[in-house]
Amino acid sequence: MITFLSDYGPGDEYVGVVEGVIARIAPHVRVIHLGHGVPAQDVRTGARRLARALPFTPAGVHLAVVDPGVGGDRRAVAIRCGARWLVGPDNGLLEPAAAAFGIDEVVDVGESPWRLEPVSATFHGRDLFGPVAAHLALGEAPDGPRFDGDELVRLPALPGDKVHVVEVDGFGNLITDAALPRSAVRIAGHEVAVGRTFGDVEPGGLVIYEDSAGDVAVAVNGGSAAALLGVRAGDELELR
Amino acid sequence: MITFLSDYGPGDEYVGVVEGVIARIAPHVRVIHLGHGVPAQDVRTGARRLARALPFTPAGVHLAVVDPGVGGDRRAVAIRCGARWLVGPDNGLLEPAAAAFGIDEVVDVGESPWRLEPVSATFHGRDLFGPVAAHLALGEAPDGPRFDGDELVRLPALPGDKVHVVEVDGFGNLITDAALPRSAVRIAGHEVAVGRTFGDVEPGGLVIYEDSAGDVAVAVNGGSAAALLGVRAGDELELR
Amino acid sequence: MITFLSDYGPGDEYVGVVEGVIARIAPHVRVIHLGHGVPAQDVRTGARRLARALPFTPAGVHLAVVDPGVGGDRRAVAIRCGARWLVGPDNGLLEPAAAAFGIDEVVDVGESPWRLEPVSATFHGRDLFGPVAAHLALGEAPDGPRFDGDELVRLPALPGDKVHVVEVDGFGNLITDAALPRSAVRIAGHEVAVGRTFGDVEPGGLVIYEDSAGDVAVAVNGGSAAALLGVRAGDELELR
Repeated sequence: MITFLSDYGPGDEYVGVVEGVIARIAPHVRVIHLGHGVPAQDVRTGARRLARALPFTPAGVHLAVVDPGVGGDRRAVAIRCGARWLVGPDNGLLEPAAAAFGIDEVVDVGESPWRLEPVSATFHGRDLFGPVAAHLALGEAPDGPRFDGDELVRLPALPGDKVHVVEVDGFGNLITDAALPRSAVRIAGHEVAVGRTFGDVEPGGLVIYEDSAGDVAVAVNGGSAAALLGVRAGDELELR
Repeated sequence: MITFLSDYGPGDEYVGVVEGVIARIAPHVRVIHLGHGVPAQDVRTGARRLARALPFTPAGVHLAVVDPGVGGDRRAVAIRCGARWLVGPDNGLLEPAAAAFGIDEVVDVGESPWRLEPVSATFHGRDLFGPVAAHLALGEAPDGPRFDGDELVRLPALPGDKVHVVEVDGFGNLITDAALPRSAVRIAGHEVAVGRTFGDVEPGGLVIYEDSAGDVAVAVNGGSAAALLGVRAGDELELR
Repeated sequence: MITFLSDYGPGDEYVGVVEGVIARIAPHVRVIHLGHGVPAQDVRTGARRLARALPFTPAGVHLAVVDPGVGGDRRAVAIRCGARWLVGPDNGLLEPAAAAFGIDEVVDVGESPWRLEPVSATFHGRDLFGPVAAHLALGEAPDGPRFDGDELVRLPALPGDKVHVVEVDGFGNLITDAALPRSAVRIAGHEVAVGRTFGDVEPGGLVIYEDSAGDVAVAVNGGSAAALLGVRAGDELELR
């Protein structure tokens, strides 16, 4: 089984082309799509979604591509964590999920003999990562230099003294790096109740709660908190 | 086989997480996606799409999640209709499709032993409905109190003396609860011809027709009727 | 195996209904989605995406539906190219991909006995093309009048003396019919460097490059060229 997450968008043909390439190499391997709507080139959101999703999927090959440095000198990697292989660019996208499982082996697959030749400068999902994922799913061993997990690129931490909107999901819910407050707070002049779920406040009301991944999130019952508060991923958030 | 419809959006990781949970329990069960772009928390549109789609799918387990009351006291149900099981929240989402097939058995699965513990307050697709669908697809029998199909929550009917835009699809076509007029009508000052398909009017022209589900719809040839007429789901529509 | 590309949108139930119809006829046939976000009724973009994608997929049945003339008198066709069958409307959507493979046989399937009766006027993906694709995937031979590949409808060529934005992808990259310039050009007052990939220019900078399909494209490093330049598919582009 292969899982696949990217910023290729749910509408273009890119995702299907990668699945087609995989199917040519490994016709009997199932592909489960973990979402291709990561905001374009937003490595941090991709890394968070991957780390949240993988503990709920079967062990397999986990392909992820959010790759603003494609065609440049960033490394391409396959990371083994027990029975799982994570495949993608070495730009911080895979590292949080891999570190959570425990890293057993890291292979630089940038010069993999499994690549489709000629390798394009802008579509490594098709020409490099897809083929590597397919061969790994067949149980083959990857060729390439090994290096230590500590040398993987890490995303810079967000400043710890502020609260941020770390991510906005498709409902307009804000995922933050706040701690859960003990009592109601105000954000941008709006009252925000502490609750367990959306329905704990009236329709249109704001609630702050621990979400299904254990993060502290802000939502509107029946609406979009991002639209109501006019904020987006990366913005600071002031809780009073 | 499992079918899956939701308002989780086609881009986030939520859909893939649910498919991952299903694959851990039932690795050989195929999942067919019936669309995850139901407008957020719009139970009525979800119910209509599900009822339209299911007669065209093989019998199997039919998972649907549009769940504004998640984590509250709404029931979680599995409804058996012959060889089919419908699984989701008891908020009117499943009832129209189930009633069309004929309801044989209703089980309250809110306390199902198949749940993933701890059950989150906001992601029952992952923690409750997905696991229940997977075990049903394996042919296992559900645990939980039985109750009568007449006690299922029903969506309130729209007032019968007005015409409504019941739903807007991705093309901007308006699905209405109108009767098909015998001759051309005017909507918001625009001439609307009666036809069979888009091409029965000039490019940019409006047509009213019986759609592929037997509903009366309004479309623009080569454009969006919703944009041209400035209407959205739930609006009243005046046909003169 | 069946591949499926359309303008049905990634969110509505239409795609899943077609997959359901296929699964009822051919339960063991895998469906690979090649993207359903072709702009509504944009046959040219659909044709380009299909022609780009198919060389990377296994041979099989290739279903494509972008069909502004549905229910009118356009033909419905199945085109055999060696071991591949392309299925869809005869409006220029399939022809470029089929011509690239080499056309061996063309069948008018508009009156196919495999149709779902009654055939709707607006959803031939469900009632005609899906069933035809499913039966072809089972290895059955199609019924219907044969005609010559030269009689297939072709898209009109764009005027050769101008440069056009032929297509805009989900990243906002512009795919053009320009030749790759030898040195930097200006578009709408912006400096555009010649490069191999996005990262060859500073964040926010414009680059013109040969894309992964061999076309000349214009992109912004970390942004959308379509938004920055205010252009869309079909627009002329002046390179100075």
